[in-house]
Amino acid sequence: MAWNTNLRWRLPLTCLLLQVAMVVLFGVFVRYDPDADAHWMEEKGPGNLSSDLDNEFYYRYPSFQDVHVMIFVGFGFLMTFLQRYGYSSVGFNFLLAAFGIQWALLMQGWFHSFHDGYIFVGVENLINADFCVGSVCVAFGAILGKVSPVQLLIMTLFQVTLFSVNEFILLSLLGVKDAGGSMTIHTFGAYFGLTVTWTLYRPNLYQSKEREGPVYQSDLFAMIGTLFLWMYWPSFNSAVSNHGDAQHRAAINTYCSLAACVLTAVAMSSALQKKGKLDMVHIQNATLAGGVAVGTAAEMMLMPYGSLIVGFICGIVSTLGFVYLTPFLKSHLRIQDTCGIHNLHGIPGIIGGIVGAVTAACATSDIYGEEGLVRAFDFKGSKKNWSPSMQGCFQAAGIFVSLAMALVGGLIVGSILKIPIWGQPADENCFEDAIYWEVPEEHKETALHPEDSTLKPSEP
Amino acid sequence: MAWNTNLRWRLPLTCLLLQVAMVVLFGVFVRYDPDADAHWMEEKGPGNLSSDLDNEFYYRYPSFQDVHVMIFVGFGFLMTFLQRYGYSSVGFNFLLAAFGIQWALLMQGWFHSFHDGYIFVGVENLINADFCVGSVCVAFGAILGKVSPVQLLIMTLFQVTLFSVNEFILLSLLGVKDAGGSMTIHTFGAYFGLTVTWTLYRPNLYQSKEREGPVYQSDLFAMIGTLFLWMYWPSFNSAVSNHGDAQHRAAINTYCSLAACVLTAVAMSSALQKKGKLDMVHIQNATLAGGVAVGTAAEMMLMPYGSLIVGFICGIVSTLGFVYLTPFLKSHLRIQDTCGIHNLHGIPGIIGGIVGAVTAACATSDIYGEEGLVRAFDFKGSKKNWSPSMQGCFQAAGIFVSLAMALVGGLIVGSILKIPIWGQPADENCFEDAIYWEVPEEHKETALHPEDSTLKPSEP
Amino acid sequence: MAWNTNLRWRLPLTCLLLQVAMVVLFGVFVRYDPDADAHWMEEKGPGNLSSDLDNEFYYRYPSFQDVHVMIFVGFGFLMTFLQRYGYSSVGFNFLLAAFGIQWALLMQGWFHSFHDGYIFVGVENLINADFCVGSVCVAFGAILGKVSPVQLLIMTLFQVTLFSVNEFILLSLLGVKDAGGSMTIHTFGAYFGLTVTWTLYRPNLYQSKEREGPVYQSDLFAMIGTLFLWMYWPSFNSAVSNHGDAQHRAAINTYCSLAACVLTAVAMSSALQKKGKLDMVHIQNATLAGGVAVGTAAEMMLMPYGSLIVGFICGIVSTLGFVYLTPFLKSHLRIQDTCGIHNLHGIPGIIGGIVGAVTAACATSDIYGEEGLVRAFDFKGSKKNWSPSMQGCFQAAGIFVSLAMALVGGLIVGSILKIPIWGQPADENCFEDAIYWEVPEEHKETALHPEDSTLKPSEP
Repeated sequence: MAWNTNLRWRLPLTCLLLQVAMVVLFGVFVRYDPDADAHWMEEKGPGNLSSDLDNEFYYRYPSFQDVHVMIFVGFGFLMTFLQRYGYSSVGFNFLLAAFGIQWALLMQGWFHSFHDGYIFVGVENLINADFCVGSVCVAFGAILGKVSPVQLLIMTLFQVTLFSVNEFILLSLLGVKDAGGSMTIHTFGAYFGLTVTWTLYRPNLYQSKEREGPVYQSDLFAMIGTLFLWMYWPSFNSAVSNHGDAQHRAAINTYCSLAACVLTAVAMSSALQKKGKLDMVHIQNATLAGGVAVGTAAEMMLMPYGSLIVGFICGIVSTLGFVYLTPFLKSHLRIQDTCGIHNLHGIPGIIGGIVGAVTAACATSDIYGEEGLVRAFDFKGSKKNWSPSMQGCFQAAGIFVSLAMALVGGLIVGSILKIPIWGQPADENCFEDAIYWEVPEEHKETALHPEDSTLKPSEP
Repeated sequence: MAWNTNLRWRLPLTCLLLQVAMVVLFGVFVRYDPDADAHWMEEKGPGNLSSDLDNEFYYRYPSFQDVHVMIFVGFGFLMTFLQRYGYSSVGFNFLLAAFGIQWALLMQGWFHSFHDGYIFVGVENLINADFCVGSVCVAFGAILGKVSPVQLLIMTLFQVTLFSVNEFILLSLLGVKDAGGSMTIHTFGAYFGLTVTWTLYRPNLYQSKEREGPVYQSDLFAMIGTLFLWMYWPSFNSAVSNHGDAQHRAAINTYCSLAACVLTAVAMSSALQKKGKLDMVHIQNATLAGGVAVGTAAEMMLMPYGSLIVGFICGIVSTLGFVYLTPFLKSHLRIQDTCGIHNLHGIPGIIGGIVGAVTAACATSDIYGEEGLVRAFDFKGSKKNWSPSMQGCFQAAGIFVSLAMALVGGLIVGSILKIPIWGQPADENCFEDAIYWEVPEEHKETALHPEDSTLKPSEP
Repeated sequence: MAWNTNLRWRLPLTCLLLQVAMVVLFGVFVRYDPDADAHWMEEKGPGNLSSDLDNEFYYRYPSFQDVHVMIFVGFGFLMTFLQRYGYSSVGFNFLLAAFGIQWALLMQGWFHSFHDGYIFVGVENLINADFCVGSVCVAFGAILGKVSPVQLLIMTLFQVTLFSVNEFILLSLLGVKDAGGSMTIHTFGAYFGLTVTWTLYRPNLYQSKEREGPVYQSDLFAMIGTLFLWMYWPSFNSAVSNHGDAQHRAAINTYCSLAACVLTAVAMSSALQKKGKLDMVHIQNATLAGGVAVGTAAEMMLMPYGSLIVGFICGIVSTLGFVYLTPFLKSHLRIQDTCGIHNLHGIPGIIGGIVGAVTAACATSDIYGEEGLVRAFDFKGSKKNWSPSMQGCFQAAGIFVSLAMALVGGLIVGSILKIPIWGQPADENCFEDAIYWEVPEEHKETALHPEDSTLKPSEP
């Protein structure tokens, strides 16, 4: 089937329409948080002893920048492993994230920072917007190479919306703690993406098979993504935790979990290949599973050895997933998961949710201190009479809610994306930059199969 | 014309001479800022209640490191898009910036941190030195591939000097606010660079034409530069703003402007190509214009939607510039602008200056608070009786001063660089690493044209 | 000699064994530092006026992340310059560092953070663990391409242990100051690595000669490593300094030294090549020597011009080392130093130790202030009666202790690594990813020499 992949009107119109909508909505709704408003100094009052440093900016900004790097360089370059899809991996990720953060500021703002008709935006909102987009980047991994940028923008529009609803249900209605987003970001993002790719199943994708692997250099570019994700993950999991010990602890736990994960991922990668050779796919992906899986519990008193155990298990499970599960999903369940997000975000996300639920249920005032327990789980206001085990139950409920939202949402959004008007590539043109990008002459020559002549008639 | 490009004596002598001069001048003039001096604790006094954190270091250091990455990795890799000029792009940028920051510490120090015969250097000076060098990196973009490292060092020497004079006129004499440097860094840097490249016009540059484009991998390297510039730009525009709300606000505004800019740049890139394909040049460059254009106003109460509008416009204008203006400048005005800095720094810089002037002129004590207005625009001391509209006029004057300094300075420096003794490459050897670098054998084979035999005689 | 390089059982077992040991030891020993413990708020007490910011996390975390990037991206990519060893450079560095930081947390913890049977871990411990691993990354540079990942893990196990002992002797027994680790990290790491590579001497390494150089793209990847090391080095040298002025000063001094170093390295690189062309090896490495050489003295009152002088000298010495010393060591002393760590870490490390000793010996209460002198050198407790010159002597002693530990330790560890059971590559298969990694088809074709058939029989 020769689809029309010329985006000359569709992509510009989509971008401009969305951006105009953002301008209007920001104009109506978005104002500065008091900490970012010029009235700040006056509001602090003359009797205030603390220094200028007592501005949320100084607690969160370094973490924000690390998270920002993860979203744009981390996810963007992680996906450049495909030999002829580097422009699209980095470029489309850039595009969808740039749109997504704006829309997330609004959606999350309406749910969490809406007062007197206005959304008040500060550095914590920027972090949360990046987080929300993180879940879209995860889902992008499943459909990488098989969709057009227009489809990605539409998916982002819907996924950010659903993410915000799900996040609101978990954090505000169920009282769940999920600072690093094992459930809200990873579980939701992964199963949403997997459902979308299931809906968009391409029976003839084998026609693009020879481009679905890496070349030597593309694997090195992907390692840039892997390492920036790995290094900055402690910032990711601690970025919106409570000030002080919680942020500190979240960073330590994530550091430990990730370190352990590398060793077991390497071990399994070597053990599962008959000559004992390592596979870059595992090194690029499974080494990160430990960060996903301590997302919920990182700020809790998981203990450093607890983090090591979580990382230990996830490195193994994730690598096994790449070797056995991904091929199975593809051949038996019609789930074509380009980047193997099920192994990096799906299973580890669920593990993370479970670890969080168990850690919360086991919390005692011995471990946290009386005041510490209240601080850690917000046992005040409407949660005043909650016990840790109750918290644990609600945490567990959060996993199921996230899964349900992901599956239902993915089905709906997948169906919308399936409509053949968004400029998606034909099965024999997947994983190919030349469809949507001007590529250098030297690259163009080998760009399309001889049989790609099918592509040309489709272009007016 | 076969120029002698052997730099064996010229480059080492230039480097050593400049570096010896730096050592001597630092010895005579440069001392630690009180916050970096071992007497610091004593000077704080025993009655001081605030913690160790009340050291400028903790307000500025994270931003400084982000800016540092932008100068060395951001600008360095952004310019690696040329297929055979990666060593030079990264390496010469490294060289000129390493010299430039030292000279800038001195020049800016004499103008702004000079007390009792000494320049007192702290983290804010490091940021400002990086800023100053940023304007040299901008200018480098116009002449990329057509100059020798000796020429670059000489240009840096003069440009840093002129930058500091211009900055002094704007900030100290005219009382202009320009925290993110739309005028001092981008407008000045861009028009300086354009004037230099105009002076160095090469009528036979077409002889190097086939090397003036990217290959597939070089475009991916360039995206590393783009993304680090894009991600850290909020730090750039907020790095030297007032503590607290101003820094906070500058980061938010820049974040918003850049996000909007990506969508409109993508829209225009697709709309202007007849098959609707995206052009990496636009993605690499035009997406950054939004950061340039909120440089002046970022710390003001521009409002998030104001930032979106600025980004919206600049994404469009910048992409249009790449498609229509750069070829026009080249063919009709003899301005050979290798990286298209006119579209990324020139026009957006001027827009930024105008946005800053208008935003300042519209400031009221309603929006800023009485005290906030004074803090934001320094309406005290010699500026005690200034009104916002007066501030706006002076802001506007700053644009013209920067332009004048850039044009006159560029003309003079360009004429100096034109003297044929600095080892510049011949027209047919531009955009080629092998002139100044030892390159791997495999690369050398294809390095020079057959007709490059002209090069060899010129080497003794 | 055809060794068996199939690691199918050896690598997984080594990884899993080490990781299980880490889990058990962490379970027995490692707990959270009070600043990262949920009891933190209560322990601060209600009368405490300071804000949440007074948590060690906010003093150190941004520096920690910068150091983290240096270890994983900096060292990892710096070593990707080899044309066919990119996977291993980045991947093995990732593996050894992930193990090393865990083991370092324990070893350094027992020596420095051990109270009541527990190691209390906070952000400073994370930085120190990264530092310790830095010395292993340095040593890795000497044996790059000639060892198996199993050997690297074993070396890491021993080197981290020895590092911690040496560090304890220097910092705790001798009272030496070495915040940036000129002695503990660089001198120790370099001479340890050189001794190991001397022990592992390969007389027939010339058989792998054609792979021991870069290709064009691999040199650009290496520049990513170089630049992140260079840019973040001010954070490295200041990360564990005293709060306030010492951290501030360390960053400034390192910034200055590194800048000067770039100019003299470029000067020498050009001067020593007969056509005056620059050599990427020098730009990638010698430009960093200035950071190594101010490691000890950066937090002292070295003065900015003092830093420039140190950088000036090291840029020259290091480049000379690459041109003359490395070939000499290889041909006459049987020291095969793949990355030239002797020039980047060895000599500059010793220079750094000397500079530190001299700077300490010259300290006066005029320069530091009475209180400042005590703070800077810990002249209290057991060091109460020390004079600066005494401090200088002990600093000098630290150099010799580090050298002795490195040589003896390297000899022992080298002998262990020489046992031919660790899956090391044959002389004709060095510098080749395909031995330990699955590589893309296109790359495999040219992977092994024709004569590499010797490799296959060795695999069962």
